[in-house]
This record gives sequence, C-alpha cells and structure tokens, in this order.
Amino acid sequence: MTHLNLLVGGPTSQWPDQLTAGKVSGDWIGADRGTLRLLKLGITPLVAIGDFDSLTADELKRVKGAVADIRQAKPEKDETDTQLAVTVALHEFHYDRLDIYGATGGRLDHFLANLWMVLEPRYRKFAPHIRFIDKQNTITFYVPGAYEITKEPDKKYLAFVTMEPVNNLTLPDEKYNLKNANVTRPISYASNEFIGETNHFSFDSGMVAVIQSKD
Amino acid sequence: MTHLNLLVGGPTSQWPDQLTAGKVSGDWIGADRGTLRLLKLGITPLVAIGDFDSLTADELKRVKGAVADIRQAKPEKDETDTQLAVTVALHEFHYDRLDIYGATGGRLDHFLANLWMVLEPRYRKFAPHIRFIDKQNTITFYVPGAYEITKEPDKKYLAFVTMEPVNNLTLPDEKYNLKNANVTRPISYASNEFIGETNHFSFDSGMVAVIQSKD
Repeated sequence: MTHLNLLVGGPTSQWPDQLTAGKVSGDWIGADRGTLRLLKLGITPLVAIGDFDSLTADELKRVKGAVADIRQAKPEKDETDTQLAVTVALHEFHYDRLDIYGATGGRLDHFLANLWMVLEPRYRKFAPHIRFIDKQNTITFYVPGAYEITKEPDKKYLAFVTMEPVNNLTLPDEKYNLKNANVTRPISYASNEFIGETNHFSFDSGMVAVIQSKD
Repeated sequence: MTHLNLLVGGPTSQWPDQLTAGKVSGDWIGADRGTLRLLKLGITPLVAIGDFDSLTADELKRVKGAVADIRQAKPEKDETDTQLAVTVALHEFHYDRLDIYGATGGRLDHFLANLWMVLEPRYRKFAPHIRFIDKQNTITFYVPGAYEITKEPDKKYLAFVTMEPVNNLTLPDEKYNLKNANVTRPISYASNEFIGETNHFSFDSGMVAVIQSKD
C-alpha cells in the first residue's frame, strides 16, 4: 500500500511525535505554512500549494527556492488551502492513501472545514482513502458496508462518529455495542474501546468516521 | 445577564488565559477532572458531576471534602460527564447563559460529542444560551432568525457553521457574503471577517454555529 502525506498549517503542538522527529515515511505535499515546516524538517515536498499569505517575503522566497512545483493561489479564493491541496493530492497522484497532518487543533473553524471536506460530492468517493492524524487521534472514514478494524497499539479509545444520518449502525463486538441503530443526526459515540485487537462494524447508508484516540 | 460556567476535563493547554489566571467571573459547575482543576484555581464549584474515573482516590477525597453537592455517576453510563453536567446546569439553575470551558482540544471524539450535544432534542432549545470558550475560539449557537453579532476585540476571524441543513443563509455585511444559500450538509464557512464592530446574518431553518477565532 502506497501513501502520500499532506501537511497543512495547524499548530505543531498537535503533531504526533513521529512527525516532530521528521520520521514519517513517504512523499509529501505542503499546504501554506505546512510547506515551510516541512522544509525545516529537512523534507522537500513534491508540491507546495496555497495562497502563502501567512508567510513573510523571506519565507516565501525559501519555499520558492526549494520546491520545484509551486501552485500559488489568490488569497481571496473560495477554497481553503487544504481543499486545494487535497484536490491536487487526489487527482494528480495515485496513492492508496492520503494521510493529512496539521488539520486539527487551534482554530476550530479550520478543523470543522477539514473534517467535513469528505462530505463534499467531489471528495466523497475518496473519503475511505483519507486519514487525519494528530498527537492523540487517528480519524478514518467509511462508506456503507461491513468492516473489520484493527486497534492501533498506542490508542486506548474507539469512537464511531455519524458524519450524517446513518442507518443500521451495528457494533457487534466492541466494549459497548449497538444493533441496527438508525441515527438521524451527527453523533460522536465516544469512549468506546476495542475488545481484543480487531473488531467489526457495519452500516447501510451515510458516512461514518472512526476515531482511535488516547488521553 | 447572569451566567454559569462549566469546566469539563479537556486539556488545560486550550484554556483561555483568563481561566488559567483564575479570573473568569461567576459561579461554576465542575465535571469530572474539571472539578479538581477548579479547586486548584481556588474556585469551589456549586456542584461536582461525573464518574470521576480519571481521579485517584486522594484526588476524589479532596473533591468530596470541598464540594457540598456531588453527583457521582456510574463509569459505564450511557451519557458523558459533559452531558450530565449540562443537564444539571440547564435544568436546576436559571442563568441566562452557560459558558463551557475544557470542551475542546485533545480527544476529538470528545470535542465532537460536546459540539453536537446542542442538536439533541433535549438541549436544542437551550442551544442559544450555550457558549464554548477556549484559548483561540468562541462558539455560539443560533436557531432560525435574524441576528446582529458583535466582534470580540481579541478575535480576527469569523466563521458560520451549518450544524445541519440550513435554508436561506444570508451574510449581508461581512467580508465575504452569502445570499439565501440553501446548505444541504454541515459546512464550516471559515476565515470570514467582520467589517466594522457589528455584522448581521439570518437563516430560516436548522442550526448555525458562529465561531470567532484567532491564530
């Protein structure tokens, strides 16, 4: 399985340790301030995307000197830097998975825009290939079906999040179970836990996010 | 206008400076670890609520010695400590506003559960009285109507967040405008800004959150 990483501009305090240490494997795309942060980690992204309005002239010069493929957008655009970067990542590159870092913490309007991006018609079919990763959380997305999920060794908690109305949500073998629940609004079923290393869940309509987290 | 404060157990790194300094005025309720943190700030909450499963025996003893009204819940309950606390705050106390601290940052399953609580039928009518406050964000909630909103002096950004489908969302006088938008899914219209000190918005159905934030 091949994966592409994307770093957007959220606070570095939310990065997982592996990223802070510059040890996340794979190719990178940088969005806005994320590009500069990648360069500081010694990582040159394949593409740098954004309006770069948060960078000083010197910082922008450094980005332009280092990255071969720069896509500079107008500051007063309709799309966020994250949307622009995800579009490039999904349409121009062919990886099995897109791992997004820097999309959480800090401004909550940004986090919610990032989270709900997967509900946009243009990104919806890609949702199962997208992960958001930070210091305490991994978020993955599922379209209707039946799934086996595997516990991440460093995470204690498991949550099922209905991103929109969901029918027949069944959690058969987790610590807390649900059977054919019809969920009419977004709910975060938080603080569930794995029993063993793998568990299962299924649903018939809508989109579900699974969050593995730790304190 | 009278207000009640609620401190839940999210990371203290997300607290606004005023809270860290123990200078938020008004009465308090503590949920789970929030109670202990209030005591450490020199604040004795009116009520302490939760399963207290994150406290040591000594910490729980301190809480029980200090707070007159303790509502201890079973750890394996269906409701979160935040839900229990909000229920007590809204039903037993009669304040005009409930300001919730400690509900953001850290575990995202917790944050989403906290955010979406206002969509529960039992809390819905109280939503306009609830605020979430952290270091960089203030979140307020609106039911259908026409509103004037006032810029918080320390915040730069303004976001309109459709918590569910919303009809005729109009932003007439902000930096970026919308006219009678029918929004069919949750969207965070992020990074808008006030023009002047007060602006307006209106919508006909659903619920909208307004987030004022800063970098």
